[in-house]
Amino acid sequence: MITIISGTHRKDNLTITFSNYYLNSIKQKGEEVQLLDLRTLPSGFFQDNSIFGTTSEEVDKLLKTYFVSAEKFIFVLPEYNGSFPGIVKMLIDSIEPSVFKGKKAALVGISSGRAGNLRGMEHFTGILHYLDVHVLPYKLPISRIFTLMDDSKTIVDDETLRVMELQIEKFIRF
Amino acid sequence: MITIISGTHRKDNLTITFSNYYLNSIKQKGEEVQLLDLRTLPSGFFQDNSIFGTTSEEVDKLLKTYFVSAEKFIFVLPEYNGSFPGIVKMLIDSIEPSVFKGKKAALVGISSGRAGNLRGMEHFTGILHYLDVHVLPYKLPISRIFTLMDDSKTIVDDETLRVMELQIEKFIRF
Amino acid sequence: MITIISGTHRKDNLTITFSNYYLNSIKQKGEEVQLLDLRTLPSGFFQDNSIFGTTSEEVDKLLKTYFVSAEKFIFVLPEYNGSFPGIVKMLIDSIEPSVFKGKKAALVGISSGRAGNLRGMEHFTGILHYLDVHVLPYKLPISRIFTLMDDSKTIVDDETLRVMELQIEKFIRF
Amino acid sequence: MITIISGTHRKDNLTITFSNYYLNSIKQKGEEVQLLDLRTLPSGFFQDNSIFGTTSEEVDKLLKTYFVSAEKFIFVLPEYNGSFPGIVKMLIDSIEPSVFKGKKAALVGISSGRAGNLRGMEHFTGILHYLDVHVLPYKLPISRIFTLMDDSKTIVDDETLRVMELQIEKFIRF
Repeated sequence: MITIISGTHRKDNLTITFSNYYLNSIKQKGEEVQLLDLRTLPSGFFQDNSIFGTTSEEVDKLLKTYFVSAEKFIFVLPEYNGSFPGIVKMLIDSIEPSVFKGKKAALVGISSGRAGNLRGMEHFTGILHYLDVHVLPYKLPISRIFTLMDDSKTIVDDETLRVMELQIEKFIRF
Repeated sequence: MITIISGTHRKDNLTITFSNYYLNSIKQKGEEVQLLDLRTLPSGFFQDNSIFGTTSEEVDKLLKTYFVSAEKFIFVLPEYNGSFPGIVKMLIDSIEPSVFKGKKAALVGISSGRAGNLRGMEHFTGILHYLDVHVLPYKLPISRIFTLMDDSKTIVDDETLRVMELQIEKFIRF
Repeated sequence: MITIISGTHRKDNLTITFSNYYLNSIKQKGEEVQLLDLRTLPSGFFQDNSIFGTTSEEVDKLLKTYFVSAEKFIFVLPEYNGSFPGIVKMLIDSIEPSVFKGKKAALVGISSGRAGNLRGMEHFTGILHYLDVHVLPYKLPISRIFTLMDDSKTIVDDETLRVMELQIEKFIRF
Repeated sequence: MITIISGTHRKDNLTITFSNYYLNSIKQKGEEVQLLDLRTLPSGFFQDNSIFGTTSEEVDKLLKTYFVSAEKFIFVLPEYNGSFPGIVKMLIDSIEPSVFKGKKAALVGISSGRAGNLRGMEHFTGILHYLDVHVLPYKLPISRIFTLMDDSKTIVDDETLRVMELQIEKFIRF
């Protein structure tokens, strides 16, 4: 099972557009895949989990579904203040580290500027390696995202579609 | 005004011991200094702030007191999963970036292991530089913290006391 | 005295074009400034210096002129294999570390691709901070350099000229 | 074939002691393995290679033997000025990037201080990922190396021996 993490809880965000692209493309290739949209985390999530010694059934179930039972993760990470959003690390900090051991991950950086959250993906690689997660070397920095979509927020840029498909193929074989 | 940020909201933590050391030492040197303990953030903090377009008076006042009116920051950063805690970045993500422009910061890494959160301080430097904050080159990795305190959680290790004082002196002149 | 280090020893390189821009612009502002073009290092440089216990007069003089007597450095760093060139670190490794203590540096990243050697500037910041060098937060990633010049290799892109001048002003005041 | 790169050209160094440990242990496990000691690079190496358009037979043969024909690499990286030695990156800069594509690497950090060249291994991971090299998440920071050996420079520290063996096992299965 592959879990895609759409890495922001801002109400209006374009990260979810890219996360959904990955979800649909991978589904069409016949792989088991699911999406965790961080906007849907239960409000008590960060106070109420195993690390802090107080679990609820709801949080327990979420962690089992999206993390314990997955073998691979795709983190779609927008650039906030020069790195990935704090909420993504807060999520990681809420999970028993052994859950990640030996699993695999791919990284996608999203930015409205030039560098496609390159720095954020570097930082997140350090964290994943610390957790003994194998990281696909082919990380995808997606920049100037407003220029890649049409008015209905469909991704139409040919080169972006090509490299996303390339990353997906590499990740399925990874 | 110097604001010290004690970088975790875990109930039981030793980061606060080091944060308090900095607070008291700087106070004794006659500088204006205050402490923000992340355990005391109002529960609605991350849903309710200017970035997300919904401010409360409580959050507004907190940001003004600890960030707008401070010129210098000391971030005391424990190591969680190989970097600094997600809540610290979530705090940064909640603040209008221009608040930080041209200000100054020092970093203290805290870990029970060997490397004193060296990686977390590297990551945080990248974020601070992005925000146009000047970072004191002398960053302090404090390791094996359990060996540095006595039973009453007073820091008694001479070398640790010496380097904290050295960093404080450098930061006051910075 | 400001020393500009043009960070490559490849015969044909465009890094020198940007290094020369900084040299001339700073000179015109009335500051003392000099250029070290790494193509001009004496051939025995890396075998023959104080760190390795065998100094020649030539190498000694070079280190004194460009490093000991300078208070500020601008490192112009092309992107080779996802970071700055090895020769730049080899140069640093050849110099007594105390030479850098308390001095100041600005970083310029140069790439034919998109990210302007962002990663290389991150790495180099870690090294400079280790050496107790103050790093200007405003680092300049210059990308797609072939699109910024005319046929005579004069930099003609208005936005690039604007941000280089901005960085120079910040660095003179730094 | 596994190539171990002993990452320094200083005459007297202890990195070679650890590199030799890896060489012998892997040999005993029946794997094909060879050592490249950077002290033995031909003197013209950095002026005379394919990247710079001037190859000699000697350099050509060296690159084929140690890089083209190897599938896996172990980089043993001492800490110089807060990161790995410049000569290691200069070596990488001298090799056609496609040689590394899809291959695998493990990293060992060596320092006389506390952090076992953690920062250098982070930097090098960024470079290897850029080159599409898979990096073993289990990176080994070896610190305070003078305390790990006896007078004959044999590594005698039990914990160090244990984690080196653990890394070797992981890398052979990688």
